[in-house]
Amino acid sequence: MNSPLKVAVLGCGSVGSQVVRLLGEQADDLAARVGAPVQLAGVAVRRLDAPREVDVPAELLTTDAAALVARDDIDLVIEVIGGIEPARSLILSALENGASVVTANKALLAEDGPTLFEAAEKAGRDLYYEAAVAGAIPILRPLRESLAGDKVTRVLGIVNGTTNFILDKMDTQGSGFADALEEAQALGYAEADPTADVEGFDAAAKAAILASLAFHSRVTAADVHREGITDVTAADVRSAREMGSVVKLLAIAELVPSADPAEDAGVSVRVHPAMIPRSHPLASVREAYNAVFVESEAAGQLMFYGPGAGGSPTASAVLGDLVTVARNHRQGTRGVGESAYADRAVLPMGETRTRYHVAIDVDDRAGVLAAVAQAFAEHGVSIQTVRQEGRGNDAQLVVVSHEASDAALAATVEQLRDMEIVREVTSVMRVEGTEE
Amino acid sequence: MNSPLKVAVLGCGSVGSQVVRLLGEQADDLAARVGAPVQLAGVAVRRLDAPREVDVPAELLTTDAAALVARDDIDLVIEVIGGIEPARSLILSALENGASVVTANKALLAEDGPTLFEAAEKAGRDLYYEAAVAGAIPILRPLRESLAGDKVTRVLGIVNGTTNFILDKMDTQGSGFADALEEAQALGYAEADPTADVEGFDAAAKAAILASLAFHSRVTAADVHREGITDVTAADVRSAREMGSVVKLLAIAELVPSADPAEDAGVSVRVHPAMIPRSHPLASVREAYNAVFVESEAAGQLMFYGPGAGGSPTASAVLGDLVTVARNHRQGTRGVGESAYADRAVLPMGETRTRYHVAIDVDDRAGVLAAVAQAFAEHGVSIQTVRQEGRGNDAQLVVVSHEASDAALAATVEQLRDMEIVREVTSVMRVEGTEE
Repeated sequence: MNSPLKVAVLGCGSVGSQVVRLLGEQADDLAARVGAPVQLAGVAVRRLDAPREVDVPAELLTTDAAALVARDDIDLVIEVIGGIEPARSLILSALENGASVVTANKALLAEDGPTLFEAAEKAGRDLYYEAAVAGAIPILRPLRESLAGDKVTRVLGIVNGTTNFILDKMDTQGSGFADALEEAQALGYAEADPTADVEGFDAAAKAAILASLAFHSRVTAADVHREGITDVTAADVRSAREMGSVVKLLAIAELVPSADPAEDAGVSVRVHPAMIPRSHPLASVREAYNAVFVESEAAGQLMFYGPGAGGSPTASAVLGDLVTVARNHRQGTRGVGESAYADRAVLPMGETRTRYHVAIDVDDRAGVLAAVAQAFAEHGVSIQTVRQEGRGNDAQLVVVSHEASDAALAATVEQLRDMEIVREVTSVMRVEGTEE
Repeated sequence: MNSPLKVAVLGCGSVGSQVVRLLGEQADDLAARVGAPVQLAGVAVRRLDAPREVDVPAELLTTDAAALVARDDIDLVIEVIGGIEPARSLILSALENGASVVTANKALLAEDGPTLFEAAEKAGRDLYYEAAVAGAIPILRPLRESLAGDKVTRVLGIVNGTTNFILDKMDTQGSGFADALEEAQALGYAEADPTADVEGFDAAAKAAILASLAFHSRVTAADVHREGITDVTAADVRSAREMGSVVKLLAIAELVPSADPAEDAGVSVRVHPAMIPRSHPLASVREAYNAVFVESEAAGQLMFYGPGAGGSPTASAVLGDLVTVARNHRQGTRGVGESAYADRAVLPMGETRTRYHVAIDVDDRAGVLAAVAQAFAEHGVSIQTVRQEGRGNDAQLVVVSHEASDAALAATVEQLRDMEIVREVTSVMRVEGTEE
């Protein structure tokens, strides 16, 4: 057998402890798959005496992560601390010291990926991060490798389990956002401070990573238009249901066509709630599951589904990367690095073409529909469907538009809100996953 | 730019012509992703003057495939002829001549994979075949690489679009097998001679490939227990519907536990129709789509969904492999080769543990249920649910068993058929995708 590869694990929380467990339990299989034993050489923790889910021999524990990654004998570093610092410095130091790195750190990659990728390139080492997006679901490797001969045109992802759980409860139980959030918190699906999830920050980081890979361009979290689900109301969910749709928080990355068919105008990268038809494969993603739907020119429509979080699923993704990285490290080669050769521009949200679903309470009298239709027409927005329902003295109009610039659609809604015949705009939401 | 890599394409049918098209249309992207231009150097066809979907310069066409793969300047060979010979000889010759190979040939891999893998290993070249299973759906790479740090316990696949289309029509339209097959043929989803699809040969080849990868063992098509869908009746489909299930043709590969928890008894690899609950992610796979559901110890449940056939989707998978193989070829490295280190035994079907759904028309009189229950008990089969429905003088009993050996379940059904009180066993089908 070849000499063992030594692994340092940074962080021993819910993911790190499962990584350590699997390194032990799967040792024989890992050795067979890597071609050499993979030996746990150190675990960096914040407190030596903290309770943890796995037994780590005391001599492997250290609070000095910087010293651990600087050790000469470390071949592979697994970073599962999360956050920007000290994770970034530790990864950079590990690469400089000649180690290959596996990380699950979406926030860091979305904020400062290029710095890390350049360091890996310079060091001639791998930096893999499948676990950073959609937990155990293999999505980065398929995008990067399986679809390398194809042209990806759109990625629609349910990449945040907390918000999917909340929206699923709002859909199935008819509850409002606050009640559904409370239930998610009680069941451990949402944190006490749910901001990162419900405001879409977590999904936006993943959208940036997906867009970078899908379109071979550099997209950071700051480029991502982000709207969370805190404003999604029971009325929105009901309105979606009435038109055979369901509300999901989507991370979207898509090529935007230009007038010249040989070139794309750029990419749109955004996170927002959207109505999708119940017949769409993403519609059946329930509870806290994740799924990523990919459209490409030759392959057509693909979907990848599974648990998007949790210690053990995330550890599975980390260890899958570890096997690849360890094989490469042993053979002195590198896997596919990052590529940003296409260098596509990220378009502002206003220039992105979307579709709106708008529900309006109006006076029930002659000329109302004409006035509403006129407001859409003034902004160059063409209407796909209108549904009108009388309700005594007033009526509800539900309009679904064709694709138009998001700015034109937003301006249309603004105008509707100011119209005298409009009592209330009860629901405004983008529509995705349907054909034009 | 680095010097170009030269590609020979063997076969220019529906897949080959799309491969040739994409090699041209995506040339710039392929070059950027590989790190060198990928240049079409020859296309082997049966007839030079046959009509084809893509324009191939006449000087690239040849009917002498053997001479093409023997050329010194060929770096990469794409085999999309299909069948056993001459595909096998051509691939072996290509590897011997130092080319790396991408193939979509499931039949050949399932029959004689080990010969090819050994030749690739000996030549130090890659042999990739993502397109051989489930068309465009990236499933082999995730199994081989993404899940390399995990322990796969079960793979359930809808891997044949023709049979899924037929069963979907039987379910949604209530039609019988013959009518649904006719519709599939009229729409081009089934061939004039549908044997390979409806008798499960195609799915069995894919099951062998999936099992080999998932369990790091050598499994060939001959090891796969195979039942097609020609005996599935409208009554079976109705009976499934009544219990909230749907009938699918599944390719199944699973670890079978043994009495010793540290060891598995072996693997079960089989293709047969089965009832799965409508809430199962595979149940919503409609028409000719494919999907593969994977269960693993750490990741939990994953599903991969997409088009399982068609020239363009299959070509996407071929070209994804081509990019990896070309990068490796250029750098003088190899990707992950085949591994059969676990060397697990394939269990006979009789020893496989399954569950049965049995619908029986019986006389409606006292003691009937007791007699039927007794028949199950005599074979050591425990019953999970029984539903009884009166119908005038007779009654229908629907029994779903717990897990038992397939042999015991088959013997139980034999005994039921011989019982005087049993008028007819109207439906017998295995049940999958439910928890015990």
